[in-house]
Amino acid sequence: MTSPHSLPTLKRVAVCGGTHGNEMSGIFLAKHWVQDPSELQRDTFHATPFLGNPHAIEKGVRYIERDLNRTFSAEFLNLKDSDIGSYEVQRAWEVNQIFGPKGSSQAYDFMFDLHNTTSNMGTCLIVDSEHCLLPMHMCNYIQKHYTRSSCPIYFYQLPGEETYGINSVAKAGIALELGPQPQGVLRADLLAQMRSIMACALDFIDLFNKGMLFPAFEIDAHKVVQRIDYPRYPDGEISAVVHPDLQDKDFLPLKPGDPIFQTVNGEDILYEGADTTYPAFINEAAYYEKKVAFVQTEKRMFSLPALQKNF
Amino acid sequence: MTSPHSLPTLKRVAVCGGTHGNEMSGIFLAKHWVQDPSELQRDTFHATPFLGNPHAIEKGVRYIERDLNRTFSAEFLNLKDSDIGSYEVQRAWEVNQIFGPKGSSQAYDFMFDLHNTTSNMGTCLIVDSEHCLLPMHMCNYIQKHYTRSSCPIYFYQLPGEETYGINSVAKAGIALELGPQPQGVLRADLLAQMRSIMACALDFIDLFNKGMLFPAFEIDAHKVVQRIDYPRYPDGEISAVVHPDLQDKDFLPLKPGDPIFQTVNGEDILYEGADTTYPAFINEAAYYEKKVAFVQTEKRMFSLPALQKNF
Repeated sequence: MTSPHSLPTLKRVAVCGGTHGNEMSGIFLAKHWVQDPSELQRDTFHATPFLGNPHAIEKGVRYIERDLNRTFSAEFLNLKDSDIGSYEVQRAWEVNQIFGPKGSSQAYDFMFDLHNTTSNMGTCLIVDSEHCLLPMHMCNYIQKHYTRSSCPIYFYQLPGEETYGINSVAKAGIALELGPQPQGVLRADLLAQMRSIMACALDFIDLFNKGMLFPAFEIDAHKVVQRIDYPRYPDGEISAVVHPDLQDKDFLPLKPGDPIFQTVNGEDILYEGADTTYPAFINEAAYYEKKVAFVQTEKRMFSLPALQKNF
Repeated sequence: MTSPHSLPTLKRVAVCGGTHGNEMSGIFLAKHWVQDPSELQRDTFHATPFLGNPHAIEKGVRYIERDLNRTFSAEFLNLKDSDIGSYEVQRAWEVNQIFGPKGSSQAYDFMFDLHNTTSNMGTCLIVDSEHCLLPMHMCNYIQKHYTRSSCPIYFYQLPGEETYGINSVAKAGIALELGPQPQGVLRADLLAQMRSIMACALDFIDLFNKGMLFPAFEIDAHKVVQRIDYPRYPDGEISAVVHPDLQDKDFLPLKPGDPIFQTVNGEDILYEGADTTYPAFINEAAYYEKKVAFVQTEKRMFSLPALQKNF
């Protein structure tokens, strides 16, 4: 047996709700935890809650001028003072000052980012990629200990793509993506799920900090292949809707020849890929403007080595 | 047998989508019908489709400055030119010019208004009150001929309250309120439902215009009693969420002692009314700002007299 990979203790942990101002589960929890952070305390650390995009939360919208969760790349974080145009670029700077700077030794050790989706993603765990060892061990721990629903893992990073989300400011992180929940709505069931998964994830960090050895494991995850737009008329208007057979079928196999869209005249548009794919973010409200009807993923098994903290 | 009530032929009929700019079923249908109105044609009339709030539709938001569907009361329609503040007041004027003026003999004979809700309202038909004879016959016809789901009837008007919705500009109207559908999302299933109900309603008008006698009938409907706000902290923030046992239970009986909210500490808040009520618009996204967690209704049977057109 090879010795486990080792990583430093996680001392500084942050929990962000409201990176998008209309995703209510994380906003409600973060506001509660700011008032009463007792749930975020463990023996070896206490996590710091904060609100990602306070102006957007106040207005009940995803963002004011641009998507905050696409604003933590060098393009925006390296702007000169005088070039900061939008509220979200300014807010990204602030978050980077407080919890980063991104890529530096001063950055927070870990950041959670709490999201909702209108898609039927269940209790989804989003990680940059399979190369994130500590987050992957956290996912494995959550899957084993939070058993009320399956927790599919989603890798969003395309090959060679820079990270751009809010938790990329910290040294490591995961996002929880719970759905379906309409924008601006707070459902008790999803709230309870998010709270339980957070409790489980904080337990994992505490056990890691206390020196527990986490053995090597194999795990299934969904890796983004490409994003699929709606069929559109020449003027840009959508000409077909997500097919009723695909709606709500996130993470279930979609085979070549299966219907994916339905036109206004009732014609089916079929999936023409060569291989079975696993769609995610099917009919997510916020992705209409991003020209994404669903995200095509491949489902693969990944092998992760054992992990233990540095002694 | 008494002779039926008689009303004039309906010659001018309008269909509005996008009174709220993020309720996608009606927006998609109205845009389609503006391009190809063939579905809206019948032997005795053809209906005119239009977009209620074009700026809000473009931005994908409910409204720009104020809720258009609360802007068709005398308070706003009687403003002097110089007092028109908001985009929606101006738009209400335009709609009133084209399809009204409200209360005048020049007004359109009928207006449909197509809505979605995040609540589990199913295929709900909204009428001002039981005094609207022609709309009530239309509801009865829809309930008998559209059999894929029940179509609960909802009277929104409180005693003595002025009408304020967009279809109050016409001489008569109904609103379709289909859910659950997140704001900004277009679901194929709800789209098909809305389209079928519209086809059925247009058939009713055509039969009425052709002189069919519609007999007297009795029908159940839900009448608004009062609107119930979320429990809140002194600073106005919501302190409890809709109880999981109430969520999605629109139009089902809620008995005294049943839980209606759940606090952040897991405490249940119970319904303390004296009588069974039938909640509607449970956890509607757009009603958080209106301080409405759900609407309490009473379910009653109403008797309507026979109807036939004037000869």
